[in-house]
Formats: sequence, C-alpha cells, structure tokens
Amino acid sequence: MDKYYTLHVAGLTRELPLCPVNEHLDIAAFVMFSDVELTIACATELNKIAPDHDVIITAESKGIPLAYEMSRQSGKKYILARKSAKLYMKAPIRVQVKSITTARIQELYIDKEDIDCLKDKRVLIVDDVISTGESLNALESLVEQAGGNTVGRMAVLAEGEAADRKDILFLEKLPLFFK
Amino acid sequence: MDKYYTLHVAGLTRELPLCPVNEHLDIAAFVMFSDVELTIACATELNKIAPDHDVIITAESKGIPLAYEMSRQSGKKYILARKSAKLYMKAPIRVQVKSITTARIQELYIDKEDIDCLKDKRVLIVDDVISTGESLNALESLVEQAGGNTVGRMAVLAEGEAADRKDILFLEKLPLFFK
Repeated sequence: MDKYYTLHVAGLTRELPLCPVNEHLDIAAFVMFSDVELTIACATELNKIAPDHDVIITAESKGIPLAYEMSRQSGKKYILARKSAKLYMKAPIRVQVKSITTARIQELYIDKEDIDCLKDKRVLIVDDVISTGESLNALESLVEQAGGNTVGRMAVLAEGEAADRKDILFLEKLPLFFK
Repeated sequence: MDKYYTLHVAGLTRELPLCPVNEHLDIAAFVMFSDVELTIACATELNKIAPDHDVIITAESKGIPLAYEMSRQSGKKYILARKSAKLYMKAPIRVQVKSITTARIQELYIDKEDIDCLKDKRVLIVDDVISTGESLNALESLVEQAGGNTVGRMAVLAEGEAADRKDILFLEKLPLFFK
C-alpha cells in the first residue's frame, strides 16, 4: 500500500508520497510542478520573510516555478543555474553538485549574462527543498564565482537535519523516514 | 563581434544572440528563463488563440515558465514531461526525443499521476520553440500513450521550416541563419 506524509505549508495541505531511497530510508516527494496554487502560496510566504535582495537564483529544474513566481510577485529578476552547458552559452562557469534524488554527481552552469546580473549584487538563493545542502553549496559557489553576495538561503522545506540549520530560512520541516 | 536577431513578439522586442550549431548554420537563442515580462506576455497571447483544452503539457526545461504562466492565467493544470526518471516516479512511461540544442538523444518521462491527468482529456502541447518537431512528436506520443487527446500544438516561435506547418499555432517565425 502506498504511504503518504501529510504536509501543511503556506496555508495548504498536500499528501506527499513516500519513496524509497534505499532499504533503510524513505523520503517524502515534494514536487511543485503542476501545482500552481501551491507555488503561488509558497512564493508569497517566502517573499514575506526574504531578506532584501536584488536578484534570485535557483537550480534546474525543481526550483524553476518557485523562483519564477517569487520573481513575478516581487519584480526581482531570477537566474537559473542549468544542469548542462547549452549551445547558447558564450562563456559559462561551472560547479559540481551531488543530488539526493538522482544519487550522482551533477554539474550546474551559468552563462556570462547571468554572471553580469549577479556581480556586486545581493543574491537570494531559493530552492524547493534543502536537504543535504549540496545543491545550496553549489549555488553559493556559483554566486561567489560570479562576484555576487549571497544575502539569504531559502527553501519551502528543510528536510532532515537541515531543519536545525541557523543559516537558512524555510516555511516547514520535512522529516526523513527511517525504516 | 557578437551578432543578434531582433525579435518582436507579444508586443515586446528582444535581441537574440546568434549561436553556431555547425560551420553552416547559426540559430538565434530564445531563452525565456529570467524574463518574466516576456513569459507573461507570450502566455497571454498563446492563451488567446489556444483551442479549448483541459490540461497543458510541456517538456523540461525551457517550456516550464511558459506552461506555468499559461496555467496560472487560465486555471488549466500543466503537466511536465521530465528528461529522466525520478526517484518519486512510481510507474513512469517514456519516449525518446532528439534535441536540436543538445544534439543527442534525450528521453522524456511522465509518471502515473500525470497519466491519470491526461487520460481522456483534451491536451494542449506547448513549448517555447518548435523547430525540427522532434520534441513535439515526443510529447504527442506521451499524450497518446497516456490515453489523452492532443487538441493543439503551440509555441511562441516556429523556427525554420516549422513556420510552414499548418498543424501548429505560434506567435512569430524565427529564421535559421545559414552561412
């Protein structure tokens, strides 16, 4: 039988399916794609508690609707760090990142135009979930390499031990499910 | 010196950088990420000419902000076909697709929950650019496998020969740049 975790966030309730990572651990899948109501509500709540910033950055792909919606509401530009170098990139910079949901080393890229948007700016890093912090570290490294100043690290959910971190802002905790 | 193509679309003007595909061909890079004003305007214009539909589907990643914004404006749910199978997918279906911007075979996946949203529904396929039509074909195949009925194929731009197609709706033509 499928198991679920009931999440209350930003005034909404969602049933998150539990997915096995390995024989000892399940995680609750939090996917904002397809859920515009949830994306709008979370973006509104995150913008309320966000430190002053000039630009938002997130990572492909799960952070895209959230960063887009925060940007739409606040008028602050959002930058997307991509998982691979694209044909259209003229002079990309790159960092490596280990993702919990794909279990392999990924890379993140931003292009020269994005670097120009980040340089000497107050940058807000946003993502759907902060878990191990690997993705966050990679984004922070990109911001640093681009000459930007990270002023905030935000997510809708802080998963597992990330909920104890004092250097991030989030709306709700998300437990890990040990078997 | 960098070259650009001046695009007028949805009441806005943008300078698209020309990027070499090979020694004979440049393409103009149309990237909606970071450009909320453009995303909103294009979504509004596409929604105006869209056939009646129940649900929108697009492909990761470039179509995400457009599909999200069309969904936000219209209230119709959007589905995202992902480039790889994810941990959270319980029973995904898959198709193969060849992308012009990455020049290799990619796969697209949707999960059981998405399939349930598409089944017996009027489905609108949307993307930022229709070029070779490979991505469009892959999405149409996914919709068919899911038991949905494709009622429209839309893009902001139709590139090269795609502009002569009678089975797609688009806002503007985008030339190819042969050298």
